[in-house]
Amino acid sequence: MTDLRKRNVLVVGGGAVGAIAALNLEVGGLVTVTAVLRSNFKIVNERGYDIESCDHGVLKAWKPGHVRNEIPDIAKESLPPYDYIVLTTKNIPDIGPRVEELVRPALDPLNTHTSIVLIQNGLNIEKPLLSTYPTTPILSGVSLIGSAEAQPGTIIQDDRDRLLIGAFQNPNIQTQASQASAKEFVKIYAAGGKTECVYSEDVLYDRWRKLVYNACLNPICAIIGLDTGRIRLADGAVEGLVKPAMREIVTAAKAKGVTLADDVVDFMIELDPLDIYLSPSMLADIRKGNFLEFENLLGEPLREGTEAGVPMPTLEVLYNLCKAVQWRTKEARGLVEIPKKRSAVVQ
Amino acid sequence: MTDLRKRNVLVVGGGAVGAIAALNLEVGGLVTVTAVLRSNFKIVNERGYDIESCDHGVLKAWKPGHVRNEIPDIAKESLPPYDYIVLTTKNIPDIGPRVEELVRPALDPLNTHTSIVLIQNGLNIEKPLLSTYPTTPILSGVSLIGSAEAQPGTIIQDDRDRLLIGAFQNPNIQTQASQASAKEFVKIYAAGGKTECVYSEDVLYDRWRKLVYNACLNPICAIIGLDTGRIRLADGAVEGLVKPAMREIVTAAKAKGVTLADDVVDFMIELDPLDIYLSPSMLADIRKGNFLEFENLLGEPLREGTEAGVPMPTLEVLYNLCKAVQWRTKEARGLVEIPKKRSAVVQ
Repeated sequence: MTDLRKRNVLVVGGGAVGAIAALNLEVGGLVTVTAVLRSNFKIVNERGYDIESCDHGVLKAWKPGHVRNEIPDIAKESLPPYDYIVLTTKNIPDIGPRVEELVRPALDPLNTHTSIVLIQNGLNIEKPLLSTYPTTPILSGVSLIGSAEAQPGTIIQDDRDRLLIGAFQNPNIQTQASQASAKEFVKIYAAGGKTECVYSEDVLYDRWRKLVYNACLNPICAIIGLDTGRIRLADGAVEGLVKPAMREIVTAAKAKGVTLADDVVDFMIELDPLDIYLSPSMLADIRKGNFLEFENLLGEPLREGTEAGVPMPTLEVLYNLCKAVQWRTKEARGLVEIPKKRSAVVQ
Repeated sequence: MTDLRKRNVLVVGGGAVGAIAALNLEVGGLVTVTAVLRSNFKIVNERGYDIESCDHGVLKAWKPGHVRNEIPDIAKESLPPYDYIVLTTKNIPDIGPRVEELVRPALDPLNTHTSIVLIQNGLNIEKPLLSTYPTTPILSGVSLIGSAEAQPGTIIQDDRDRLLIGAFQNPNIQTQASQASAKEFVKIYAAGGKTECVYSEDVLYDRWRKLVYNACLNPICAIIGLDTGRIRLADGAVEGLVKPAMREIVTAAKAKGVTLADDVVDFMIELDPLDIYLSPSMLADIRKGNFLEFENLLGEPLREGTEAGVPMPTLEVLYNLCKAVQWRTKEARGLVEIPKKRSAVVQ
């Protein structure tokens, strides 16, 4: 960093990923954090977080510098622009809120000062932001953290926070500007020395690589209702579902110019130790009755691969199953109306 | 029938299908029925069935002629052979019991007298019986009944009992003998005049046609957790899943010499009125924690079609999902052992 001013960082989302990101940024000492919370705002605002972290140890009643329950409106409040807006919320464009609308109050439309950091999964998540805020540097954060919010405000982080940060391609601004911003963010995120935050030159590679897990194991576990340990034990699931799906992602990535290592399929299958019985995010969401983050994790790579001429029959079925499961959640939440049931009259 | 002797019929399984079959056979007056019950034996033996039927009206405490809780051992009990053994149980060869073992005590291995009637779904269900009892006529029963066991011994039949009976090909006995047996069974089943029981020349056609529903809608509803009404409303489920799956069955049938009508896909999608919100058997089974009858309904047509060179990518994925769901049920029932969970120790 060329100047000593503390950076202003807005962390949007204070769940399992956002809370650890906010904590880690503050531990580094180079930033002032404002955290925007929703479901756990009240409890965290009153009592702070209880955190058990393999990186940071045990913290009781820890509170980010500033806590808010909505995105600040910088124009109305006459606030200076943030240096970084870090999005750690789930990205569910088919349900909402759309990220480009979510950040709007905190961003000058002609902004060039603020960088947006997307610590979110999936492909093409930067596109709606780039078209809405063409001069804003958008950074990619691919996180490999193992962390869960056991109850509102209580975070258990049992696997290390490893974060890959890079700049998304933006045709409207100089690549160097985005890259410099990404490199600065790596510095302020890594400053505490507790985590592995690395600058990445090849954002697309990072994202396709993580999709090998996230477009495949993640929805398969959710649809079947089995964690990653059990999926590896279940009759035929790995050979019949997981591997074919993963190979489709590898082939699609290749068609899009991203060559993944030969062992990436086996690596991703064995990523979660079997006897941890880890529930990937979509399985956790299904069990909580939440919507599935499947459009960017599964829909986008499917569309990109299919457009590039790659046959993706396994992911096609998984995608349509997710879509119907999403509808089931919409109905359960009263978001769709269906015709009344006809009474079964005995003739 | 050329003689006036009442036929002895053993009905195996006294659930939604078996109870109505036993009732209907007795109403015809041409048979003596022995019903073999399992889960509902105690209650039916003590109090009889309560039945509400669109074909037969309301019956309180109705009991088949004879009720047993296991298959009679005709050798040990010196019983005469049955004229018909009617199997109405679910056919789950991957879990058991296997049908050929189930009927063994009631059948002379060199039997030519008894015909076995399989009122069961799916493909190739006759094969293990033909190889175990090569000289036994095996009849096919394709039922379109709408019936459910609301609680043990209580049967609600809200859609007519329509039964197609024909003879499976048996290379070891004269086709005429099997066909005559099938025609006689149609007579005794239809004798009561309350149901539509029809002799069918083309058993394979009947079975492939019903698979358009049973290999597709049935598992799709079960996997997603939506009934047939909701599946028709859910985003993209019909176009993305149901139709592609059904078309694969139609193509596989064609490759096996069975030409289904052009409108069979639409017909099967609209078979259950939307506003009945009917749960197909596999969805009902999932909700009850029961095993899925997926090997004969989905596995066999998939194997036959694939061997005949038909690409069946949708059914391939659905099949492997069912297999993993079946494993989940096995684990829930303590039938598989898995390694102990490692405790998540914070470092």
